[in-house]
Amino acid sequence: MTFNPVLDGLKNYEAGKPIELVVREYGISPSDVIKLASNENPRGCSPRVLAAIQQESTRAHLYPDDSMYELKEGLASRFGVGKENVIVGAGSDQVIGFALHAKANPNQGILMAGVTFAMYEIYGKQTGATIFKTPSKMHNLNEFRALLATHKGAIGVLFLCLPNNPLGEGIDTEEIKTFLREVDPNILVVVDGAYQEYAAFKDPAKAINPKAFIEEFPNVLYLGTFSKAYGLGGMRCGYGIGEAGLIHTLHKLRPPFNITTLSLKAAIEALKDEAFVTHCMEENFREMKRYEAEAKALGFDFIESYTNFITLAFSEGKSASTIAQSLLEKGIIIRDLSAYGMNAVRVTIGTPEQNSRFFEIFKRAYC
Amino acid sequence: MTFNPVLDGLKNYEAGKPIELVVREYGISPSDVIKLASNENPRGCSPRVLAAIQQESTRAHLYPDDSMYELKEGLASRFGVGKENVIVGAGSDQVIGFALHAKANPNQGILMAGVTFAMYEIYGKQTGATIFKTPSKMHNLNEFRALLATHKGAIGVLFLCLPNNPLGEGIDTEEIKTFLREVDPNILVVVDGAYQEYAAFKDPAKAINPKAFIEEFPNVLYLGTFSKAYGLGGMRCGYGIGEAGLIHTLHKLRPPFNITTLSLKAAIEALKDEAFVTHCMEENFREMKRYEAEAKALGFDFIESYTNFITLAFSEGKSASTIAQSLLEKGIIIRDLSAYGMNAVRVTIGTPEQNSRFFEIFKRAYC
Repeated sequence: MTFNPVLDGLKNYEAGKPIELVVREYGISPSDVIKLASNENPRGCSPRVLAAIQQESTRAHLYPDDSMYELKEGLASRFGVGKENVIVGAGSDQVIGFALHAKANPNQGILMAGVTFAMYEIYGKQTGATIFKTPSKMHNLNEFRALLATHKGAIGVLFLCLPNNPLGEGIDTEEIKTFLREVDPNILVVVDGAYQEYAAFKDPAKAINPKAFIEEFPNVLYLGTFSKAYGLGGMRCGYGIGEAGLIHTLHKLRPPFNITTLSLKAAIEALKDEAFVTHCMEENFREMKRYEAEAKALGFDFIESYTNFITLAFSEGKSASTIAQSLLEKGIIIRDLSAYGMNAVRVTIGTPEQNSRFFEIFKRAYC
Repeated sequence: MTFNPVLDGLKNYEAGKPIELVVREYGISPSDVIKLASNENPRGCSPRVLAAIQQESTRAHLYPDDSMYELKEGLASRFGVGKENVIVGAGSDQVIGFALHAKANPNQGILMAGVTFAMYEIYGKQTGATIFKTPSKMHNLNEFRALLATHKGAIGVLFLCLPNNPLGEGIDTEEIKTFLREVDPNILVVVDGAYQEYAAFKDPAKAINPKAFIEEFPNVLYLGTFSKAYGLGGMRCGYGIGEAGLIHTLHKLRPPFNITTLSLKAAIEALKDEAFVTHCMEENFREMKRYEAEAKALGFDFIESYTNFITLAFSEGKSASTIAQSLLEKGIIIRDLSAYGMNAVRVTIGTPEQNSRFFEIFKRAYC
C-alpha cells in the first residue's frame, strides 16, 4: 500500500527506557529501579491530587466534560487570563502538535535551538516543513536573529524552550522580550514553559508571565504542563495560553475528549495545592547543589540548570554512553545525550535517597 | 496571523452535553442526572479494573511504558495475532486520525456511510481530503460499490462501522468479506469494531475476527476500544489491528506516551475479566427489549441495534429535538439526531433503574 509521501521522512519515536523494561531485561526488582531519565517529579503528585484521582476512578467509564469548564476556569484564574485564552492538551506535547499543524507546511519552516525538546522536530516533520536549527546547542538569540533574516518569509513557527530541555539553560525574560519585539508578527512563537515553575523559583529574572506575554505578543503561544512540577507526567495533561483568536483556531485541531476523566480531575485539584509545588521546588534545588558539588569534586562540567534535571558533560576520556549503560545495568536509568552529539548525560534530580544511591553507583561507573 | 488553508474548512467539535453542564445549567443534583447520550457502559468498568486503577494511581507521576509491551501482549493473545500487528491509541479515535493522516490527502478522498461516526469526517477534513458519503444513511454496500466505481483512483480510505454508530445497524460478516474482495487493495479499509463485543454477542453472523480479516485483507485496519463494552470511556484507550507493515507505518504518527499510565494499567487488567463483559452484554440486550417493546407500545419506529444504544425514529407529528430538550431539563441526557437530518434520538441502554426512569420521563415528553 502507498502512503502519503511525508511519512517517508518520519521515524518511529524511541522513548526513554521505562522501569518495566529494565525489570524485564536486567532482572532487577521494580522497587530497586531508580528512574532519573524522564524528569518526572520524584515526590509524585500532591496527596490531595492522589485522593481526587482515586475518588474519580469510579467515574472511569464516563467521558470527561469536553468543555473542560472547571479546568479552564482554574487555569484562567491562575494566570489572570480568560477561559478563551486557554486550550488543554494531552500533555503540552499535543498543543505543540496543534500549533505545528495549524501553521507549518512545506513552505513554512520551523526554527529552534540546536538541542531542544525533540517533539518540535518530530511533530514538525509530520507537516512536511523544513527544520532550521541554530548552530549553538543552547539558545542563542543572535543566531535566531540571523536565521530569521536569512530565511525571511520561510519560517512559520519558532520555538523557545524556556528553560530548555534537555540542557537546562535559562535566558532572562527581558532579553526574550527584546527579541520578540523584532520577530515578524505572522510567525507563531511557541514559548514552552514546561519547566517554568522551576525557573521562576530559582531566578525571578527568568520567570515568564503568560498574561503579559500574550498581551504584548499576540503571536505567542505559551505552553505549560502538569507533567513536571505538579507530578502528573503519567496523566498526560498540559495547556496552551494565547490570544483568543489563536486559541480558537487551535481548538479546530483538538480531538474531543483529549484528556482522560481522571486527568481532568487531577489537573483541577493540582491547581489548588501550590504549597506542594513550592515544597518540591525547594527540595529540587537543594538536591541539585549536591550534583553540582559532585561534578566539581570529580572534575567534570555541568550546565547551570533552571529545571528539575542537570546535564553532566564529560571530557574525552570518559564516555557518556558507557556510563549510562553501566548505570542501567545497576537499575539506574538516566538519559544519554550522545544522540545529540554531546558526550553528556541528563539526570533528573531525584529524592535525597535516590540521589545518594545515584552518586554511589555513578562514582563506581565514572572513576 | 495566517494559518494553513485547510483549517478554513474545519469547525470546532461540539461534544455531547456532559453531566457537569446539566448540573450547571438546570440546577439538577449530579446524582439525579442520567446520561444516556455517549454509549458509556452504565455498569462502569470491572471491579478488578477499578482496583487496579486505584493502585496504579500512586504512579501517576511516571510516564507509561511507551512500548506498551504488556498491553500489546494482552491484545495479541486475545486476538491470536502478533504484537507487531497492534497499535494503541488514545481511544480508537486516535488510530482513525493516524490512518487518515497516513493515507488521505486532497487527491485521495474518504468514503463512508451516509450517517456514521462523526470523527471520520472531522479528522478527514484535517487532511484536506474530499469526503464521499453514500446516499443511504445506513451502510449499503451496493452504494459503496457504485461510489468506488465512479470515483476510481480518487478514494484512499474507506470506513465501515460494524455495527454502525450512531444508528446501530449491523451487516453479516460474509457480505462484508465478499465486498472487501472487490475493493482495490491500495485503498485502506478501516473496519471500526468499537461495538463488536455487542454485535458478536447478539448475532454471531455479525462477529468479525480481526485475525482472519487482516490475513485475507492486508489493506484492512480493524479498530477496537476499551470505551464501550469494557466500561473505560473516560480512560481513552483503543487499538488498531492490521498487517505488520501497515501498523509500522501508523506508528510513525503516534505521539509518545499517547495513553496515560492509569489507562495502560486499566486496559491490561480489563482483558483479564471477560466475564464482566459477558455479564454486561446479557443485561444490555435484556434491557434493549424493553426499549423495543416501548416503541411498539407507543407506535414509533426503532432501528434494530447490535450495540449498546438504540435509535428511536419519530413520525412527523413529534419532534426529536423537542423531546430531547424536554428530557434534558429533567436531567436525562440523550442524543438528538436532528443534525444528521433525522427526526430521531439515540439512547444508550442504561441500567434497569436508569431505563425505568427514562421510560417514565420519556412518556411524559412524548405523549
